[in-house]
Formats: sequence, C-alpha cells, structure tokens
Amino acid sequence: MTRIAVDAMGGDRAPGEIVAGALDAARQGVTPILVGPGGLDTGGLELLEAADSIAMDEKPADAVRGKPDSSLVVACRAVSEGRAEAVVSAGNTGAMLAAGLLHLRRLPGVMRPAIAVPIPTQRGPSVLLDSGANADARPEHLLQFGYMGSVFAQEILELAKPKVRLLSIGEEPEKGNQLTIEAHALLDASDLNFGGNAESRELLAGAADVIVCDGFTGNIALKLLEGTIRTLLDALRAEMSATPRGKLGGVLIRPAARRLRTRLDPETYGGAYLLGLRGLAVIAHGNSSRRAIANAILLAARGVEHDVVGRLAARLPQRAAAV
Amino acid sequence: MTRIAVDAMGGDRAPGEIVAGALDAARQGVTPILVGPGGLDTGGLELLEAADSIAMDEKPADAVRGKPDSSLVVACRAVSEGRAEAVVSAGNTGAMLAAGLLHLRRLPGVMRPAIAVPIPTQRGPSVLLDSGANADARPEHLLQFGYMGSVFAQEILELAKPKVRLLSIGEEPEKGNQLTIEAHALLDASDLNFGGNAESRELLAGAADVIVCDGFTGNIALKLLEGTIRTLLDALRAEMSATPRGKLGGVLIRPAARRLRTRLDPETYGGAYLLGLRGLAVIAHGNSSRRAIANAILLAARGVEHDVVGRLAARLPQRAAAV
Repeated sequence: MTRIAVDAMGGDRAPGEIVAGALDAARQGVTPILVGPGGLDTGGLELLEAADSIAMDEKPADAVRGKPDSSLVVACRAVSEGRAEAVVSAGNTGAMLAAGLLHLRRLPGVMRPAIAVPIPTQRGPSVLLDSGANADARPEHLLQFGYMGSVFAQEILELAKPKVRLLSIGEEPEKGNQLTIEAHALLDASDLNFGGNAESRELLAGAADVIVCDGFTGNIALKLLEGTIRTLLDALRAEMSATPRGKLGGVLIRPAARRLRTRLDPETYGGAYLLGLRGLAVIAHGNSSRRAIANAILLAARGVEHDVVGRLAARLPQRAAAV
Repeated sequence: MTRIAVDAMGGDRAPGEIVAGALDAARQGVTPILVGPGGLDTGGLELLEAADSIAMDEKPADAVRGKPDSSLVVACRAVSEGRAEAVVSAGNTGAMLAAGLLHLRRLPGVMRPAIAVPIPTQRGPSVLLDSGANADARPEHLLQFGYMGSVFAQEILELAKPKVRLLSIGEEPEKGNQLTIEAHALLDASDLNFGGNAESRELLAGAADVIVCDGFTGNIALKLLEGTIRTLLDALRAEMSATPRGKLGGVLIRPAARRLRTRLDPETYGGAYLLGLRGLAVIAHGNSSRRAIANAILLAARGVEHDVVGRLAARLPQRAAAV
C-alpha cells in the first residue's frame, strides 16, 4: 500500500476538500496520511500532526525556514524520513518548491528540479516542463528536462516512447533565442525521441508528448493557455446571453460544452509534479476540488509504483556526464 | 494625401486581395502605390515596377540581399527615397524586418526596432511588443519598447495616457527572470505610466494598453493566443456537430459567435508594426484579406499623419541617454 503524505491545510478549500479527496483516493487502494492540526476530522485516515500552516501568499523561503511545524513542511519531511513515499499539497507552490529542495533534496546528477504540468490537449495528454521552477535556465538544464519529461510521460501518462519537442518560435533549428538554439543541438544529439522545435500555436492541439522550455516561458505559456480558454468561454457566454436566441442556443450546446471542458479539464491530472528530487512531490491547484486532490494522490501513487524517482536517477547522471 | 507603398506580391492571397484592399483604402483618402510586376492590373492605382518577388519561405537576409528588385525591397526603398511615407507588406516577416533595417535604417537613439502587434482584447485594443524582432533582448531594450509602445498606443490606437505593463510570471517586481527583474526597475524609474508586471493569463481579458516583453516571449505569447482561440473554437464546433441537439444549438449561437469573432478579430488592425525605423513599416498577416490589407494601409497612413516616427525619435534618445 503506497503511503502518500497529504498536506491537509494547503489550498483555498482546505481542509474539507483535501480530506474528502484523500478518502476517495483511499477507497482506490492508496494510503493517504493527512498532515494537519491535532483534532482534525480525517474520516478515519491516519493523521500526522502539524501545529502550523503556511498561507498561500507567504514568502516561500521565509515560510519554509520559519515554520518547520507547518503542514507542508511536515508532509515533505514525512517523505525524507521514510514515513511516506510521496507528498501532495494544494498549498503555496513556491513553499513546496523550497521545502522540496530543503527536505527532499535533489537526486544525484540533477542540476535543477523542474515543475512538470500535464496538459490535456486535443490529441491526449502532454507534459510541459519546466513550468516555473527555474525562471532562468541553461541549455543543459533543458536537456535534463527532456529526460525527466520522458520518464514522466512514460510512467505517469502511460505514453510509449514519448516524443519530446522544444518550445520555440519556429520549427527550424536556428529559430529561437540563444537558449533554445543551444538546447536544440543538445536534444538533437541525445538518444531522446526528439521531434525538433514546436510552436506555441500547436500547444492545445497537441504538439508532442513532452514540451520542454525554461520555467519563465513555461509559466507564461501555461497561464496564457488557462487564461485564454477561460476568457474566451466567458466572452462567448456573455455574447450568448445578450439575445433570447443566443440564450436558447446556449442551453442546447451545454452538453457539448461540458464534454469539451471535461476533455480539456486540468483537474484530470491534479496539478504540477516536482521532478528531480529524492521523492515525488505533487503541487495541486490552489482551488483544487475533492476530485482534483484524489487524482493528484492517485497519480502520485502511480509515480511511486512505477518508481519514477528511481528511473529518473538511473537515466539522468550518465546523460549529464555525457554533455 | 498620404502615400503608402504596398507590396502587391507579398502574402498568400497576392496580388488579388492586396490590390482590392489598396483600392478600398484609396476610396478612404489614402494614396497607395502598388509595387509589383509591369502589367499588373492595379485598377487605376499608381504602379511602381519591381520585376522580382520574395517567397514566404525564403531565408530573409539572403532574399533581401539577393533580390534588390523584389517588390518587398523596392517598396521599402520607396520610403527611404521619399516616394512614399510608409510601407505595407503581407509577405515574409523576416524579410520585411531585414529590408527595414537595411533600407529604412534605425532612428537615432533606437537600440533595436521592435515588432508591435495590436491585440483586440475584451477591454479594447492592447499592443504587444516585441513580438519577434529580438529573440534575445536586454533590459534597456525593454525600456525602449515601453516608450515605442506608448507612442503607438496613443497615436495609432487612440488611447490617452497608455498604461504600460511588463509581461512576467507574477505581479510582484521580484517575480520573473533576470531580464524582467532588471527591466522592471528601469520601467518603474521611468516617466512612463507603468503599471508593473502583468501575468499572461490576463492578456486576452486586457491587462494593459501596452504589454512589453522580449521578442521570444512575445512571439510565444502571440502564437499561443491565436492557436488556443482557434483550437478551442474548432473543438467546440466538433463537439456541437456530434449530436442533433448540439447542431441546432450551434446554428442558434452563430450570431453570438460572430459578434465575438468580430470583437477579437486580429484583422481589425491589419498586422504587425515595425517600430524604431526612419519610416513606418506594417507587416500584414500572410493570409490577409482585402479588409485586413485596407485596414493595414489606413493605420499606416494614420501613423504617418500622427507622425509616429517623429514622435518616437523625439521621445527616445533622451530616455536612452538617461539610462
């Protein structure tokens, strides 16, 4: 039974939705350990006590250092101390990154951990990394992200021989900035299934199984994708409500719109995966529902069962040395 | 009468839609000069002969150097030789950039020209720059883009006291990469109406009048915006056609969808504006329709009448010296 430490106090809807999601995951064969204050109603799940908690807007590094008894930090330590095999939090992303680096520590050979975010696309799931851990990156980091993303796509998204592409501003190898031009050469010379540069216009249609970029570009891309989908659907809804005909049409297309939303729903994958540490860490959306939390826990468990951390460790150092 | 050199042979729909768009613009008081092969039916507009043309997929620098008699190069030279006051082409963007640098030349004080793209947002027009001229940029370039974008927003988009924001990965000044953190400080110390960092999720909703970023980030953002809108609307259409109910709903929402498309239509502004040269150059979309070409010509004329180039020249060097 895979044991997953779950930060019961992280996220906008904590602890209610977190506990509910953990109970759902428990019914599917995972063993969540809830981390939160004594007296928390866990519905019968194991409780690991943590007196403190970190707010969504606290400064990450200060919060992690200043609050060693916060639920997020205690949940990370549960992994490094061997009480759990992975950690899930819907709390402060920066704090999770800081706590992960401090308490889980990097795998040998990993230069920089990356945040990998599964994106549901028209052609099925892709994983985008780095989506924010490293605002400035070097070409060799991007090469490592390619390997990390491949292991993730294979083991967590169940994609055989994942195709890796580099996010840039043109398909030709010479199109891009200094970083992507150099990273292209490294990726091209590697034994990854590298498909060259991908343009951002193909992202939602499904450009590749693994999309590699620096954390600044990835974060811009991910938020633009989310914001554009939301703004566009809101604007369409507003236009439809402006006339009786549009209103009726809106009612009729509701099932189609719902199918589309389900297919492109980020909650399917529960959030972002912090890769490159000696333990798997999942950062769920701040406003995660019970379903998103359950999915994040199940996918974290899947990562443990498929030994994502071990496979990363086995695959990376040789590559890094080969650069 | 403002004279605009129009590359009759540039773009996927040349020369038909180009000539038609130029004729439409002429009816609104502008004087287009069509640049193309002898014998081209210009509907009575002045023809400046150019025996050659540059294809969409030619290598920009080679094409511009190797084809001095191409319609795109001749059109740019028409501006530097004083025969026209601005140039419009729906052809090869890279070639236009190369020809602009070579034949129009930079304004004194301008470190790097930038491609400015007007984006129709929920709250009205924004301008995003740089959207691809400089894949690698320095903080002082971004400061200049802020000034160039402000002049553009004021004179071409008719926005009084335009608000400038820096595209980054969080609103706080310290969120971003090395480039944006340093650029933030320069913008903040300037006399621009600077509103701090903007996140990409707000782009389509309307984050600011002027959005500043390096050309790599801007190109990624722009193509992601376009691709996401297209993929999402295509996917919704496919979901609707899957059932009779959805099909009927699709027919009923058609006027609402059309209003939305019109409001967010990039053709309203005709394309991208190359700023920082001794003449205004407009790069229309490759698949520009007659309407897009007419709008591009009219906006180029507006830029000439409002002396965008002169205002840029007057505003920039002092600022650059102050850095």
